[in-house]
Amino acid sequence: MAGPIRVTVWNEFRHETSNADIARIYPNGMHAAIACHLETRGFAVKTATLDEPQHGLTEDVLSETDVLTWWGHAAHREVEDEIVERVQRRVLDGMGLIVLHSGHFSKIFKKLMGTTCNLKWREIAEHERIWVVEPGHPIAQGLPPYFELDHVEMYGERFDIPAPDQLVLLSWFPGGEVFRSGCCFNRGSGKIFYFRPGHETFPLFHNEHVLRVITNAVRWAAPAGGPPVEFGNLQPLEDIKIRP
Amino acid sequence: MAGPIRVTVWNEFRHETSNADIARIYPNGMHAAIACHLETRGFAVKTATLDEPQHGLTEDVLSETDVLTWWGHAAHREVEDEIVERVQRRVLDGMGLIVLHSGHFSKIFKKLMGTTCNLKWREIAEHERIWVVEPGHPIAQGLPPYFELDHVEMYGERFDIPAPDQLVLLSWFPGGEVFRSGCCFNRGSGKIFYFRPGHETFPLFHNEHVLRVITNAVRWAAPAGGPPVEFGNLQPLEDIKIRP
Amino acid sequence: MAGPIRVTVWNEFRHETSNADIARIYPNGMHAAIACHLETRGFAVKTATLDEPQHGLTEDVLSETDVLTWWGHAAHREVEDEIVERVQRRVLDGMGLIVLHSGHFSKIFKKLMGTTCNLKWREIAEHERIWVVEPGHPIAQGLPPYFELDHVEMYGERFDIPAPDQLVLLSWFPGGEVFRSGCCFNRGSGKIFYFRPGHETFPLFHNEHVLRVITNAVRWAAPAGGPPVEFGNLQPLEDIKIRP
Amino acid sequence: MAGPIRVTVWNEFRHETSNADIARIYPNGMHAAIACHLETRGFAVKTATLDEPQHGLTEDVLSETDVLTWWGHAAHREVEDEIVERVQRRVLDGMGLIVLHSGHFSKIFKKLMGTTCNLKWREIAEHERIWVVEPGHPIAQGLPPYFELDHVEMYGERFDIPAPDQLVLLSWFPGGEVFRSGCCFNRGSGKIFYFRPGHETFPLFHNEHVLRVITNAVRWAAPAGGPPVEFGNLQPLEDIKIRP
Repeated sequence: MAGPIRVTVWNEFRHETSNADIARIYPNGMHAAIACHLETRGFAVKTATLDEPQHGLTEDVLSETDVLTWWGHAAHREVEDEIVERVQRRVLDGMGLIVLHSGHFSKIFKKLMGTTCNLKWREIAEHERIWVVEPGHPIAQGLPPYFELDHVEMYGERFDIPAPDQLVLLSWFPGGEVFRSGCCFNRGSGKIFYFRPGHETFPLFHNEHVLRVITNAVRWAAPAGGPPVEFGNLQPLEDIKIRP
Repeated sequence: MAGPIRVTVWNEFRHETSNADIARIYPNGMHAAIACHLETRGFAVKTATLDEPQHGLTEDVLSETDVLTWWGHAAHREVEDEIVERVQRRVLDGMGLIVLHSGHFSKIFKKLMGTTCNLKWREIAEHERIWVVEPGHPIAQGLPPYFELDHVEMYGERFDIPAPDQLVLLSWFPGGEVFRSGCCFNRGSGKIFYFRPGHETFPLFHNEHVLRVITNAVRWAAPAGGPPVEFGNLQPLEDIKIRP
Repeated sequence: MAGPIRVTVWNEFRHETSNADIARIYPNGMHAAIACHLETRGFAVKTATLDEPQHGLTEDVLSETDVLTWWGHAAHREVEDEIVERVQRRVLDGMGLIVLHSGHFSKIFKKLMGTTCNLKWREIAEHERIWVVEPGHPIAQGLPPYFELDHVEMYGERFDIPAPDQLVLLSWFPGGEVFRSGCCFNRGSGKIFYFRPGHETFPLFHNEHVLRVITNAVRWAAPAGGPPVEFGNLQPLEDIKIRP
Repeated sequence: MAGPIRVTVWNEFRHETSNADIARIYPNGMHAAIACHLETRGFAVKTATLDEPQHGLTEDVLSETDVLTWWGHAAHREVEDEIVERVQRRVLDGMGLIVLHSGHFSKIFKKLMGTTCNLKWREIAEHERIWVVEPGHPIAQGLPPYFELDHVEMYGERFDIPAPDQLVLLSWFPGGEVFRSGCCFNRGSGKIFYFRPGHETFPLFHNEHVLRVITNAVRWAAPAGGPPVEFGNLQPLEDIKIRP
């Protein structure tokens, strides 16, 4: 790619405007926190939110996006099916997609996975330890063997996703749960990364390790520049020998 | 499982009633040919077709089906979304699904894959050679290293599916094409097998190798009897030490 | 397969003869405990141990073995390379292999994996919770969503293995560790299952869940009856068109 | 990584010195052809050959190598086991490895795969078509949907390797064979790419598509900079609650 990777950071942006505690952590929204960090890493970053026209995801915006990050929680149902299908087409056409935390239940993630994407959860501000299980993967770049987050919402297995094409991170929680927290999927010409942390009531998008994972994931998910994909009817070849 | 595996053979059943050439090959429909063979293998077999009420796939039928086979081609759009979602739920809950040939474009397969499931094709009655590339897989049971089909419709890569969880069969065509022809997927608690051959204008569901693959796939895809899957909010555990 | 699955239970059988505490748990060796259980499940079971001639693994024994289970710990180095290569050939030819606990460091497992198979460990009789993450897999048959073992040796990630072809079980330990505890691998025509529990100082091979997993794994790993595998020089085909 | 990727191009370098026809194609050896191209792509390139002391692969050379490419054919047995183990350790520690053509039978590839790596072959200068089946993979960058090679040695399935972690390229041959020609494997912290073309009697390492694949593979296989991997005994944690 010639220029910098172009990232669009999408956010539901409802909790931050309706809950004072959350607004204190993310005064301009979680998308602003993520976008600010990504800009310091040299990406060309834009943001988009649910309440913009077309949720900020017009054909033009998507066609100029290399990697889209997605955070949603309370308003998954308000995302219009037409926009979801548009995002899906763009992913299959090569755009990267980073799905964060409660985005596991977003329409776009469920549509791309084909499963319920359901899981177990508990919200008591417990702590989490995240292990790197695939240390050679680009998304592990610069990480320690494990890192800890002090206060999180727990997500536990069974996580109803297809087996990831690569499993990079595994989480441990004090209540006896484990979770596949960093999962890579290839779909069409696009790459998808699901990353578990990111609950709205904790300052996780200010955490250095969380931000590093997202940064690495953006680089990994950027379009690879592979061949155009052709489908459809091939012309009858009259000179095919029916037996070689 | 106590009794025999219960199979429901689903067929669009339109070509056989509207095209005399196809009716000669499959006088009672492709489903009848497949079902007859599976009965000789000891399965408990029923059939269902598009034009039955609810396409023959009521909640009762599905709840008593261990493995569903699916053939569709000209009328994918006529399959009601509600029934598609019902089948999807049953697959995620453990029912096996065998998708045959042009079923690659069925609503249910696309929904479970999350991709377009598009491909290249050519219909000149060329021949096909199908190689076993995973000889230890149960679906390869009793097959030769490769088998040939005299007259088929060609399907060629790029086949827009997620990378299969196991790739069992690879096809070769005389025009220079290759295809991933036997693909296993795990989704939810269910198993899915896509099998390429089966064009309506050729007697492929009378071919011994094709029938053997379908038979093996039914055995492989039958519910495994694993644990019930639990999701949702876990009770706050007051006695969790926040640090171990 | 016509008759029952033929299992050979291999054991180093040193701890049980040199340590009275271990002998109390397994008076006839761990292999006897495992073999007794497998016999109740209808398998045709034999045992073999390190100090027998050829470690009990003659060509004849292996050629009549469908699935071999392997437990070793203190004497991996004493297993002769020639026997290891013999077992490897048999696995690639279709024999199943179940590697238990400290067998992760056996010559045969390392040879089949191509990696160090190293890991972290701690022995303080802590407890373990094992989650089923792939509920549709045959090895999960009859298991609850998770099961617990009261006193175990801990194994923790990073576990230096190739990414398993299917990951069925994930372990949680109270000290903050996680582990891929039930791992399926296909190698050649053979299937390999690594299963974590089984430390010699705890009665784990008397535990119902551990025994069920081993039983399920034996069924899963039994030879599939696929095609013979052919290699080597194909005869020059004089009539190949160099362009189709 | 700060500087350019450091590549060591290894070659058996025997055919080129003993066969005049081959010497005409590769006057300075296949390694020189590959190295020259990689230099034009901005890599820091060295070469090493079988008949150098330690095959040119001293600890120093390997410790300063990010990616090693390997071509061998007639003299696999002459590669010393000690050097093979040294290369294996370096791969598991993060060095990339690109295995070319007949290198499928090298000691290092077989050791890392754990299988025979055997296959079918035929040498009649037939042509080959190579399809990209994973267009989103970095190794597909800049490739067309397929490319053709006019004169090659054929390799056909069954190729006795573990299922690749990603399958990028599939080959078609006019005699009815198919082959998994571009295979990615993760082992330890290292990445391995097997690439099929490269027979010594054809000028394949002058072909633009072959060189592009190798170039892309070098970039993909370069060390990711992930965490150091720690193994061994963890200190007993006296304060672990045995139940959470």
